[in-house]
Amino acid sequence: MAGPLNAFVPDSNAHLPGSDDGPLSGLTFAAKDIFDIAGHVTGCGNPYWLATHSPAEANAWVVQRLVDAGAAMVGKTITDELTRGIFGENMHYGTPVNPSAPGRVPGGSSSGSASAVAGRLVDFALGSDTGGSVRVPSSFCGLFGLRPTHGRIPLDGMLLQAPSFDTIGWFARDAETFARVGSVVLPPSPAVERPQRLVIAEDAWDLAEPGTRQALETVLEKFGALFASSATVRLSPSSLEEWSGHQQVLQSREAWESARDWIDQVNPTFSFEVSDRYALARSVTDEQIVTAQAGRNAVIARMNEVFNGGDAVVCLPTTVAPAPPLGQRVSDRHTLRLRNSALTSIAGNTGRPQISLPLAEVDGLPVGLSLLGDYSADEQLIALAREIIG
Amino acid sequence: MAGPLNAFVPDSNAHLPGSDDGPLSGLTFAAKDIFDIAGHVTGCGNPYWLATHSPAEANAWVVQRLVDAGAAMVGKTITDELTRGIFGENMHYGTPVNPSAPGRVPGGSSSGSASAVAGRLVDFALGSDTGGSVRVPSSFCGLFGLRPTHGRIPLDGMLLQAPSFDTIGWFARDAETFARVGSVVLPPSPAVERPQRLVIAEDAWDLAEPGTRQALETVLEKFGALFASSATVRLSPSSLEEWSGHQQVLQSREAWESARDWIDQVNPTFSFEVSDRYALARSVTDEQIVTAQAGRNAVIARMNEVFNGGDAVVCLPTTVAPAPPLGQRVSDRHTLRLRNSALTSIAGNTGRPQISLPLAEVDGLPVGLSLLGDYSADEQLIALAREIIG
Repeated sequence: MAGPLNAFVPDSNAHLPGSDDGPLSGLTFAAKDIFDIAGHVTGCGNPYWLATHSPAEANAWVVQRLVDAGAAMVGKTITDELTRGIFGENMHYGTPVNPSAPGRVPGGSSSGSASAVAGRLVDFALGSDTGGSVRVPSSFCGLFGLRPTHGRIPLDGMLLQAPSFDTIGWFARDAETFARVGSVVLPPSPAVERPQRLVIAEDAWDLAEPGTRQALETVLEKFGALFASSATVRLSPSSLEEWSGHQQVLQSREAWESARDWIDQVNPTFSFEVSDRYALARSVTDEQIVTAQAGRNAVIARMNEVFNGGDAVVCLPTTVAPAPPLGQRVSDRHTLRLRNSALTSIAGNTGRPQISLPLAEVDGLPVGLSLLGDYSADEQLIALAREIIG
Repeated sequence: MAGPLNAFVPDSNAHLPGSDDGPLSGLTFAAKDIFDIAGHVTGCGNPYWLATHSPAEANAWVVQRLVDAGAAMVGKTITDELTRGIFGENMHYGTPVNPSAPGRVPGGSSSGSASAVAGRLVDFALGSDTGGSVRVPSSFCGLFGLRPTHGRIPLDGMLLQAPSFDTIGWFARDAETFARVGSVVLPPSPAVERPQRLVIAEDAWDLAEPGTRQALETVLEKFGALFASSATVRLSPSSLEEWSGHQQVLQSREAWESARDWIDQVNPTFSFEVSDRYALARSVTDEQIVTAQAGRNAVIARMNEVFNGGDAVVCLPTTVAPAPPLGQRVSDRHTLRLRNSALTSIAGNTGRPQISLPLAEVDGLPVGLSLLGDYSADEQLIALAREIIG
């Protein structure tokens, strides 16, 4: 019912033709089912959400922007419930297939979008990234994926999870298509210099599994020559896990504030894992918030120091390993989620852009290499991707 | 699909004819879907449980006992998920109708059993009572219902939630049918004297809402004459809420131990409320357990003191009020659940039997009066019920 690869939302015929003479005319795309499509209920990966909301009155800003630029929206894609997941296993609608890693999860929460692009059902797809929901499926499915600078792409008409972390991102199979979409959805910004200084984030690399580290280091050697200088730097004076903890606390509180009233009223059915995260989120104390906010500020200050001068790009593994097998235990997924969050929260806490590049494989499974840029350097990261691909 | 009143489990044709010449021949009954019926999967109110378990190889002990005695098992009834609820609102299968209180919940977790009896679909029905799951729906649906002495009726072939609190109970519309069932399912025990001393549990009555208290006090006046003496006694030196807290802690830990491995493996979908209770259960610390166990021992000692001599029966409201409306907010249900637990945990913590009698109404809604007896005084409570009904 969800169509090929179980990527699409079942029983939705949402479809928007693109204009004929735009820069994206001829391209097709899919949108994660958290973006409003006028006349359709935005389901957000949970049947109770679907049943308790009205059809959207207008298209989400980013969807309208793409359609106006000529791209055709051909379907809504499955998402983790209310974007609360990083592996893509939705217990209501099933897990979208990872065409690049059979028997493995696609990554989430933008699971169906990554699946549809990797499976060549569409040219590109929209996702969102709060804690890694574009970058992780990019890594797992072997795609280009960007978490843009926080605040650059308007979120109007999208489900908010944790507004101080929420961003819109997209997936493509090739760097050129990826860049064409970027030129449409990224609003104009002050020109930013092409980064000349490569910073290798030692503590991030230390978190990767040995095979993943080795595969990504081989790639890294090939493009070091594109930069004037290269340095290995330890980002966190404590640990990236501690940094990540600040985002966990702050994001949890924001996510609970976003959903609490609806949950209290509807008593929706979630997978245990999702409910568990909300239950933990509710238990976050004001004291924890104060500590985490101070911690987040320290992360931002430290990363400003690393970027000092603005000509740097930080290189790190997108995920600690390729996609795990389907159907892992909740407790194992929890452990792995925290390990990956230590990598993804650097961009999350700081609001910096990060692009994941599909440049490596481990035992035939894709795993992404990431470039983390300065504020508003989204276009430079995309341009670098094209340089690196060659 | 769940049949009349939404009382029965959908898509189950479990049925067992009764023997022709037993003491219960001619009676029909339904069984909460936590009791094994050979050849059928015991669903326990959750579709993931149903999908991940095999058909039962044998009938539950109590089901076989009833069938051997002549009663016909005509259907499995809807239960709160894994018996984790007290109001009967199952988000997967819907809420069984309360025929005695339209627009109100039936009570749970033995919701379908109470609904089927109150709606005259069967003569009696089996439930289980860990924290009130027979007594509360008895009160809300206007039925006779017993939580027997802990350990008296074998639990073989029944889903265990929290073994140190789990009991099997049953519902009937009239005291005579209720007693006939009791004579079959209660194993022989040493003779216990008919209670002569009525103890009115002042702190329990103080918890009832004014209208409920008044309606039940009117009933109480009528049967005070059946006892040689009557005294008003405050049961708890602290509060019944504190007593109840001990059960919450201990029951939570046991419930988590019962379900944790399956939850971790399957990541089942539950209503948020049910997941939330498991998440809280998981967070119970060993220190809390030690304190709660000591508290439970103190409750037992205090109640032994109240029963000193063994000829007493304690009278209390079964619930603080009649059934609440359908679709309350999760937070409101939580508050009300704790209030009712302060009443139900006296029997729970001590393992004493408690019968709820359908003797009162508030604004047309039934509410039960309870008699709490000495250990193994189940038959005496049932006999008292017949005396009181007259």
